[in-house]
Amino acid sequence: MTPHTDLHPLDAWEAAQRLARREITAEALLRSCLARIAEREPQVQAFAALDAEAALAQARAIDAGWGGPETSGSALLRGLPLGAKDIFDTADLPTACGSPIHAGQRPRADAAAVALCRAAGAVLVGKTVTSELANMTAGPTRNPHRLTHTPGGSSSGSAAAVADGMLMLALGTQTAGSLIRPAAFCGVVAYKPSVGRVPRAGVKSVSESMDVVGGFARSVRGAALLGAVLTGDARLLPSAWPADGASEEAGGRSAGAATLRIGLAPTPDWPQAGPDTQRAWDEALRRLGPRARCEDAALPPAFARLAALQQAVMAHEAARALAWEHRQQRDRLSEPLRALLDQGAAIPGERHAAHQAEARACAAEVDALFANHDVLLAPSTLGEAPAGLAHTGDPLFCRAWSLLGLPSLHLPFTQGASGLPVGLQLVGRHGEDHRLFAAADRVHAWLRGEA
Amino acid sequence: MTPHTDLHPLDAWEAAQRLARREITAEALLRSCLARIAEREPQVQAFAALDAEAALAQARAIDAGWGGPETSGSALLRGLPLGAKDIFDTADLPTACGSPIHAGQRPRADAAAVALCRAAGAVLVGKTVTSELANMTAGPTRNPHRLTHTPGGSSSGSAAAVADGMLMLALGTQTAGSLIRPAAFCGVVAYKPSVGRVPRAGVKSVSESMDVVGGFARSVRGAALLGAVLTGDARLLPSAWPADGASEEAGGRSAGAATLRIGLAPTPDWPQAGPDTQRAWDEALRRLGPRARCEDAALPPAFARLAALQQAVMAHEAARALAWEHRQQRDRLSEPLRALLDQGAAIPGERHAAHQAEARACAAEVDALFANHDVLLAPSTLGEAPAGLAHTGDPLFCRAWSLLGLPSLHLPFTQGASGLPVGLQLVGRHGEDHRLFAAADRVHAWLRGEA
Repeated sequence: MTPHTDLHPLDAWEAAQRLARREITAEALLRSCLARIAEREPQVQAFAALDAEAALAQARAIDAGWGGPETSGSALLRGLPLGAKDIFDTADLPTACGSPIHAGQRPRADAAAVALCRAAGAVLVGKTVTSELANMTAGPTRNPHRLTHTPGGSSSGSAAAVADGMLMLALGTQTAGSLIRPAAFCGVVAYKPSVGRVPRAGVKSVSESMDVVGGFARSVRGAALLGAVLTGDARLLPSAWPADGASEEAGGRSAGAATLRIGLAPTPDWPQAGPDTQRAWDEALRRLGPRARCEDAALPPAFARLAALQQAVMAHEAARALAWEHRQQRDRLSEPLRALLDQGAAIPGERHAAHQAEARACAAEVDALFANHDVLLAPSTLGEAPAGLAHTGDPLFCRAWSLLGLPSLHLPFTQGASGLPVGLQLVGRHGEDHRLFAAADRVHAWLRGEA
Repeated sequence: MTPHTDLHPLDAWEAAQRLARREITAEALLRSCLARIAEREPQVQAFAALDAEAALAQARAIDAGWGGPETSGSALLRGLPLGAKDIFDTADLPTACGSPIHAGQRPRADAAAVALCRAAGAVLVGKTVTSELANMTAGPTRNPHRLTHTPGGSSSGSAAAVADGMLMLALGTQTAGSLIRPAAFCGVVAYKPSVGRVPRAGVKSVSESMDVVGGFARSVRGAALLGAVLTGDARLLPSAWPADGASEEAGGRSAGAATLRIGLAPTPDWPQAGPDTQRAWDEALRRLGPRARCEDAALPPAFARLAALQQAVMAHEAARALAWEHRQQRDRLSEPLRALLDQGAAIPGERHAAHQAEARACAAEVDALFANHDVLLAPSTLGEAPAGLAHTGDPLFCRAWSLLGLPSLHLPFTQGASGLPVGLQLVGRHGEDHRLFAAADRVHAWLRGEA
């Protein structure tokens, strides 16, 4: 049996295989993660709440063949140490939402996503730091690759903990760029599902139309395990991926069974990409060019408006979803969040409805692009994680895809000039998260020079 | 000044006008409602929690010119006694969700819809009875028109309290028929907004894709006040309705400025309509025929599948949204709800995705119908409120519209054979809630023989 202190660097997929083969125990895996947490948490500060003893009890119960209804059939996450962003309700840990307003709050129930992961055998280790109410005012978490840099936000602790080997998997949410951006800054995979695929029950709501529950892993396959549990869709799993990455359903939509059609979508905001993202893009094209059919995606002209529209939609919806905090707890909000909510509350509902209609029209045009492309390749961030802990970085390159509600995966594969992680995101068609995963697994291998 | 005991039968719109003209005070209005509650609540049992003293304090503060930020501008609900279905979180009243699992639960914050109504000056009187977790197992509420009959569900207490003069307005939610059906059985107006228009933050989630926050009033204008606050869209207000009921934007889509185009949509489930609903339908056609252009709406053939699809989508999404209750609190669920969740959990995510895709395709076809019709007229219920309190009635005629996410208003206007209320619903185009309200005000007057 491997000494438990060596297990924490495992990817969730590999750990799941070893657990299934009984080569390792859930307790040994957890102990390795807990040791890593004990060593690193004082610097990284990824956790808002942690209960090692409760987690150990869960792990031991799993090792003892805990007989929950799911363990027989689809215990996809059995024994995997999991964290949940501190805006997910949990019955046994406080849920503070990164705000003094909610400090010490003890919900009665687990959020649906937490309950589904636990039912699939995951071991909940703790709650991870979120920025204030999943908006932009940073929490204490630092980038594990360089402690003076931001880990990104708002799912800061989840990304940092998975990147640093403290957890195998972690839950997060995205409204603008809160999954993809911290994944990029911390160098891990993030899965942002299609809007509407994953239940948000018990998760603090910021935007009625854009909030999405997703998560982090260290590989596409690890993320697929989590994604299959969150969506209940077994087609997300590697066992369902066609060997050549093209689903048999794709039929006539594919140029050739073995050729992946990647639409290049640097987006109209590309001039704002920094040199690290530009280099990553060029590197990606060099690696993907010989292996896939890479063609420019003809984004509709309206796409150029989406990032600004997303900001307005988010501000308006946040002011409404957080109406109680905005009106009853005004003095306990950070100044930037108060300003955002004031701005959003000043947008009349009729203008908001027009923004939504504009986004829907553009979504239909973007959807049509998938007749020509299996997936779209797009930047995730302006560049490496910026220095400083006061800000969580710019979500610019995530805003449009969030507004459109499309599924995406961040794929880390290179480094920026200062040695911090850089990657790109792959965007799929709405509802075709399974095709996105199958494509991303191949693309990630190509990007990393493994195939 | 009118004696306070005479004010509770006022419609919310009329009460708001009198409050604004200072003919009545918020306290007098509330005292009249509280007197009605004291008289009737032992029989009707509409409330899950009630705090008369706290409500009186709110009303007095409003009368004293309480200077919250909203009262200067858009205090649309200023001084109106309001109830909230007991699945809406409230900071000062417990939120039990109609289930022993959540009995005595005290959330820290108000749900967004409650906070928005309070910011608009509403006086929260209490929490109203919901069926178990907003599903079908009935609570104690009785139909105020005949105590041996169901008030409908799941927003049972909200509909009954507004119908019986205990409240001017009440919040509810709909997933299958939980606004329209109790409104029909109790003889009040219900507004079910377009999916996505009203924030669900702080409301117990049952269905990720179909849950909608709406409410009850005793007139279309009263519902418009509530709707304008919930959506933030001032176009819902009577002051924004074109005098002839057709928006200037409608332009070429309208046959004539003064002629409302009503699409008749009895739906493929019409053979299941009972004699009371059949008579109401015939009566409606006689009254509307001379006043509007009534033509059959050519519902797509796929529409016939929607009611069954809605059941499958709801079961699956409920099993996921209520994953914690389903798995951790199984023994405290009613047998029918446990069976529904078991059924839903057995539907694989990939089949659910196919159901959703089928619904979306049909939604596009139904949307195209609005080129020919301003609104659709459809049945709300099979007939009068059935006898008995164990069941809340069949939501059959609401299922398809809920799955499509379209806005609707229930319009009460006649009685069934046994003297209980019967009405029909008017369905609008997604996102065009304002056009629906403008049309419904005219249609309701025609149906009631007032114009």
